[in-house]
Amino acid sequence: MTPTPTDDDLGLAAAIAHDAADQLAGLRQRFLVPDDVIYLDGNSLGVLPVGVAERVSTAVSEEWGTGLIRSWNAARWVDLPSRVGARIAAMIGARPDCVIAADSTTVNLFKVLSAAVALQPGRTKIVTETGNFPTDNYIAEGVIRQCGGRHQLVHIDQPEDITTALDSDVAVLMLTHVNYRNGRVHDMAALTRAAQDAGALVIWDLAHSAGALPVDLEGCNVDFAVGCGYKYLNGGPGAPAFLYAAPRHQGGFQQPLSGWFGHANPFDFAPSYRAAADILQYQCGTPPVLSMIALDAALDAWDGVSMAAVRAKSMALTDYFITLVEARCTGHGLTLVSPRDATQRGSQVSFTHQTETGELGGYAIISALIEDGVIGDFRAPDVLRFGFTPLYTRFVDVWHAVDRLAMVMNERRWDRPEFRTRRKVT
Amino acid sequence: MTPTPTDDDLGLAAAIAHDAADQLAGLRQRFLVPDDVIYLDGNSLGVLPVGVAERVSTAVSEEWGTGLIRSWNAARWVDLPSRVGARIAAMIGARPDCVIAADSTTVNLFKVLSAAVALQPGRTKIVTETGNFPTDNYIAEGVIRQCGGRHQLVHIDQPEDITTALDSDVAVLMLTHVNYRNGRVHDMAALTRAAQDAGALVIWDLAHSAGALPVDLEGCNVDFAVGCGYKYLNGGPGAPAFLYAAPRHQGGFQQPLSGWFGHANPFDFAPSYRAAADILQYQCGTPPVLSMIALDAALDAWDGVSMAAVRAKSMALTDYFITLVEARCTGHGLTLVSPRDATQRGSQVSFTHQTETGELGGYAIISALIEDGVIGDFRAPDVLRFGFTPLYTRFVDVWHAVDRLAMVMNERRWDRPEFRTRRKVT
Repeated sequence: MTPTPTDDDLGLAAAIAHDAADQLAGLRQRFLVPDDVIYLDGNSLGVLPVGVAERVSTAVSEEWGTGLIRSWNAARWVDLPSRVGARIAAMIGARPDCVIAADSTTVNLFKVLSAAVALQPGRTKIVTETGNFPTDNYIAEGVIRQCGGRHQLVHIDQPEDITTALDSDVAVLMLTHVNYRNGRVHDMAALTRAAQDAGALVIWDLAHSAGALPVDLEGCNVDFAVGCGYKYLNGGPGAPAFLYAAPRHQGGFQQPLSGWFGHANPFDFAPSYRAAADILQYQCGTPPVLSMIALDAALDAWDGVSMAAVRAKSMALTDYFITLVEARCTGHGLTLVSPRDATQRGSQVSFTHQTETGELGGYAIISALIEDGVIGDFRAPDVLRFGFTPLYTRFVDVWHAVDRLAMVMNERRWDRPEFRTRRKVT
Repeated sequence: MTPTPTDDDLGLAAAIAHDAADQLAGLRQRFLVPDDVIYLDGNSLGVLPVGVAERVSTAVSEEWGTGLIRSWNAARWVDLPSRVGARIAAMIGARPDCVIAADSTTVNLFKVLSAAVALQPGRTKIVTETGNFPTDNYIAEGVIRQCGGRHQLVHIDQPEDITTALDSDVAVLMLTHVNYRNGRVHDMAALTRAAQDAGALVIWDLAHSAGALPVDLEGCNVDFAVGCGYKYLNGGPGAPAFLYAAPRHQGGFQQPLSGWFGHANPFDFAPSYRAAADILQYQCGTPPVLSMIALDAALDAWDGVSMAAVRAKSMALTDYFITLVEARCTGHGLTLVSPRDATQRGSQVSFTHQTETGELGGYAIISALIEDGVIGDFRAPDVLRFGFTPLYTRFVDVWHAVDRLAMVMNERRWDRPEFRTRRKVT
């Protein structure tokens, strides 16, 4: 289907021309991208945006150092979770009062999964994918164990089998929108509808979606969602995560992490818990203010950015990467494991690698690339994963990354002992 | 019992002399204490230590900005929770491999309470104090609800009645070591022994203990503990909290917040959860690195500090405060609600206030004091709370704070409309 690229298509000049035509090219100035690396790992940790260091410095020295306890009100620390949440809401098709920033993605998933299970007293199955991000499935195990072991975690191997599994015992369908390994995108609208038609509630993990592609939680009638602050949102290492709850899931019940920040009146110090009637009920303890402020400042990089334009560039970058790799690394054992159709793919491209003797080369190749200044990442046991962040990734970055990958493959540089540590299947 | 103070005892010269004799006086240089306030609220948010701003700035600009994803290993982000935990362990009488820094105090309490309940399958009571910090009791409600409602939260009104409540149905005794309102200290050794003699497990909340007075978790054979990073440890607003689990509670089971950071091999991305065999199993999701680094840097202020010396100064500061208040604010309706015996008191002093007509004056008095540059805090409905942090609080600060309190009382300054918002009992 894809036309065979010409030599012109494969040359550096074409990359330069793509950048010249890129209407988002100027956004790169909003980030402090190091000169000495090509960074294709913004889906693990986003690059530092301009302005964050100064904002954090002010928070430390002035808000904390001088304002001290008064800054909870004077510097508005107290409503950071809802203010940051409202900014993220705008990027994922949610009402501003349906999202808060809080805790980690994993802890937030525990909250919403526990809430969803509690809302479905007669149903005993939680449906997930075998290939879901592990921590999501681990948390489901934890919820099930604590709820007395009456529930069953159903792992579906193939995405196309999910709808078949949606019977009347299913309490919750819990999926990650964009798969962390291969980047495959689920049809959020169709799966949400199918699950709800079967009487299930739906939780989406947006870790690899928020800031990467358009999401329409309200339009899809999603029940709950969680997501990550440190990937495409560039909030810094371990940035607070976010949590979405549809208006119908606010106020009517309590999630089990019933800490004081989720109380209707935390500073009344009432003896018993009474949940806030709004999204604040999904908070628990005191938020990590400095990390939250870094995330808040990082979101400035999105001011005025069209998510449709981001998606268009993301598809172009990833298409271009696939074209270059397949043209320049032919015969070296690399196999595309991401969907070839860009509309079915998040903002990443993944390959696997096998040597002629059947060994897995992924870890060694990524290691050799990193030594050469191209940062992608490896996901055990065999995935080479490359993330493309349209706000700061250029077409010339893609070109140079593939140029170096081709050198690593042509020179069999990955086959050196120092890179081979995890080559064998164990 | 306390001798009546002389005019000399009550004068500023005595305060200056106390500071001159204070062997910890030099530690104040490790903090950036603002000049324009007298800060008696380090038990809500500790003062910014010297060096933290620079360390956080380096973390943002170099570790994140330049190192990017590589800093998880190169800058040792990955073992921050255990490294910071080990430093805190040294302050609370714990082995270094029994403490991690993670999440919030509230979330950590959820972990250990859930674990403790799971370890006691035949027992159905969780015993707490009515006056425990509310979020602790709220979390117990959350755990009970999620575990099917079979457990009962038993609120004990009077500390001396706790041991009587320890019958064979008690699964867990859950207490805060130093009461947040009145500063009363529980006898950790005796209560832990009594509970364990009755077959219960014991959880201590050290929010107002760690960094305030000596704690000996191992010597007291404590099962679990949690505590706060942003009070006496000065880790910054919403700093990560800590969690202690005795060696016997590591490895044998799982807590329900079974996120990937608590997995035996998180980066194997195994399909099912297998808990780490050590304290790391009490982690959940990705830690907030920037906030964690601030806490790590803040702990430098404790280098070489003897907790016994801190305790001695804490008792002297709080005794001095009580003496001055009672001498200089006589007849104004202030009543000491903290233990008069310093050995029974944490590093805070609390008063209540009633006007001659029976109204509560606490909120108005604290508001008037803050306007005058003395920062204490108010705890609803009626407590004026003053925290004393021996690392940076001077005796002259205590003197000036009481001098201004005396003015507020003598001039009835608290009786102005702008301060009276919450004077009435509601």
